[in-house]
Amino acid sequence: MTRITFEEMKATIKQAFLNAGMPEGKADICAQIHTESSRDGVYSHGLNRVERFVDYIEKGWVDVNAEPTLDLNLGAMEIYNGNMGPGVLNAIFAMNRATEIAKKNGLGLVSLNNTTHWMRGGAYGWQAAEKGFIGICWTNTESCMPAWGAKSGGIGNNPFIMAVPRKEGHIVLDMAMSQYSYGKLQVTRLKNEKLPFAGGFNQEGNLTDDPGEIENTRRILPMGYWKGSGFAVLLDIISALLSGGLTTAAIDRAGLGSCGSCCQVFIAINPLKINSQEFIEQVLNETIQQLKTSVPANENGEIFYPGEQSLKKRRENLELGIPVDDGIWAKVKELAYTN
Amino acid sequence: MTRITFEEMKATIKQAFLNAGMPEGKADICAQIHTESSRDGVYSHGLNRVERFVDYIEKGWVDVNAEPTLDLNLGAMEIYNGNMGPGVLNAIFAMNRATEIAKKNGLGLVSLNNTTHWMRGGAYGWQAAEKGFIGICWTNTESCMPAWGAKSGGIGNNPFIMAVPRKEGHIVLDMAMSQYSYGKLQVTRLKNEKLPFAGGFNQEGNLTDDPGEIENTRRILPMGYWKGSGFAVLLDIISALLSGGLTTAAIDRAGLGSCGSCCQVFIAINPLKINSQEFIEQVLNETIQQLKTSVPANENGEIFYPGEQSLKKRRENLELGIPVDDGIWAKVKELAYTN
Repeated sequence: MTRITFEEMKATIKQAFLNAGMPEGKADICAQIHTESSRDGVYSHGLNRVERFVDYIEKGWVDVNAEPTLDLNLGAMEIYNGNMGPGVLNAIFAMNRATEIAKKNGLGLVSLNNTTHWMRGGAYGWQAAEKGFIGICWTNTESCMPAWGAKSGGIGNNPFIMAVPRKEGHIVLDMAMSQYSYGKLQVTRLKNEKLPFAGGFNQEGNLTDDPGEIENTRRILPMGYWKGSGFAVLLDIISALLSGGLTTAAIDRAGLGSCGSCCQVFIAINPLKINSQEFIEQVLNETIQQLKTSVPANENGEIFYPGEQSLKKRRENLELGIPVDDGIWAKVKELAYTN
Repeated sequence: MTRITFEEMKATIKQAFLNAGMPEGKADICAQIHTESSRDGVYSHGLNRVERFVDYIEKGWVDVNAEPTLDLNLGAMEIYNGNMGPGVLNAIFAMNRATEIAKKNGLGLVSLNNTTHWMRGGAYGWQAAEKGFIGICWTNTESCMPAWGAKSGGIGNNPFIMAVPRKEGHIVLDMAMSQYSYGKLQVTRLKNEKLPFAGGFNQEGNLTDDPGEIENTRRILPMGYWKGSGFAVLLDIISALLSGGLTTAAIDRAGLGSCGSCCQVFIAINPLKINSQEFIEQVLNETIQQLKTSVPANENGEIFYPGEQSLKKRRENLELGIPVDDGIWAKVKELAYTN
């Protein structure tokens, strides 16, 4: 395993995006976000996603020059058309607008229709928290998971993010609706390992922890069985209704790649409009203390707050370099430096 | 199993609440909500919860005369002190205020601090949907579930509700953070049955589908393992920060019973401020069609949209009468008619 510095990874990704026709400033921000995802251990949506993103640009599924345009302003709520621009840039814009609204009024909601894959959803939770805001956001996607009771795909694996700012490390939940991602299945299979818990159904319709069997049936398991399935449906419908955009069913019909013309919702709340800094710290500290003083299930076990392990991974990867798959790294370098 | 008409059940519960000192109008609304919960099949928070609610009134943990008072008005967001009044009444008030704000501006958020158990959280999702609004709400609770990685309780089993209005039947997700409720464990154990899927850990620290073993360890499983655990933490923190109220950790310290002085968040959105009725129907219809035309996992299986089975149960119970546990029904009648 090779480790790459943040700077080298970012510069290489940026050059690949420039080669694909992205303007300088946009390529810089997108490269930053992809590199940050790898830095935080979310390799699947960082470096490993660069090639596919470039492919989408070439297919015309992402318009590198598009900017979001306002569809509707309702005061605390604003709706934008993403115009099929880069999902990362649209999402940063939308969460930023939500925080600007919330700065004044306490609460801001911005939705996007007609946008594209935002890569790592957690990025926009961290973004809000970094600015001192509570952030909540989600996206819908194409269908890639069977609804509960079905064996054919019908619902999206819609990520849902909640973030709370905290000086010593933000508290960030970033979860998709499946128990495991297809990326996790692949990685586990390649290591000849089993999943920690059943992650889907095999050909016989039984739950299995064998990743290869699930990849074959594509009957990936919603988290919490019927709960994650129902949650995915509501996230999908509400994102479409809040933005006037496409549902999972309509994204499937559009056929513009993963998350092509999807909808996203960004909510920001200014906690200082409601509470003193002292009260906020008390809420965070007593909650983390309650977690940390729980009796661990395993000897010497530790209980983590949401986001804690991302932060640990970030520090480790900044110190040692960001690990890369050699084949993927070679491919991105080729996109950057062979023309 | 005895079946009781809606009217008889409501009248009996109302009389029990009147006997406990509730004013007429409040007793009527609370009895209506408890009966509706049983009518929809949520027996645990309907008739079966009447005795405990009366007990809380007698202990002084619920103030039947209290009304919510405004702490802070931020325009699209309002914060109220529930003053330890009946959680059902406070929650109805809060969701109603949220819809009033949303009626004008599209989006309304109302939070409550210092409130009490709202019984069935789904009630307030149905309430918003019935008025034509998208509703999102959640509550925090006392700790009753171990965080992921822990074997002692530290997090709340915080219910989370999302509802979308639809003429032919609202789409409503009402989920707590545990895979199964303690009520479900008890009912399953009494029938000498196993859970459909593992619902917690046994004494040896292994996952089990034996409800009695889980009741013994109280190591109930968060839905989706680490996901439901993290979600519970964020719902807790955000409800406290949005209302200036108590966290799960502080509710534990307060010791005022289940959900004593808890916090709740109610969000309402007016979909007609953003979309035409025609577009809304298209979103709902194509999503339900996508679910309904999925290939069922089992022969003759059916895929349900969230809320569909509640509605079926409602129709069945209204036609045949609401089933009651004879012992519980006798106890509520005693509370109502023996003084």
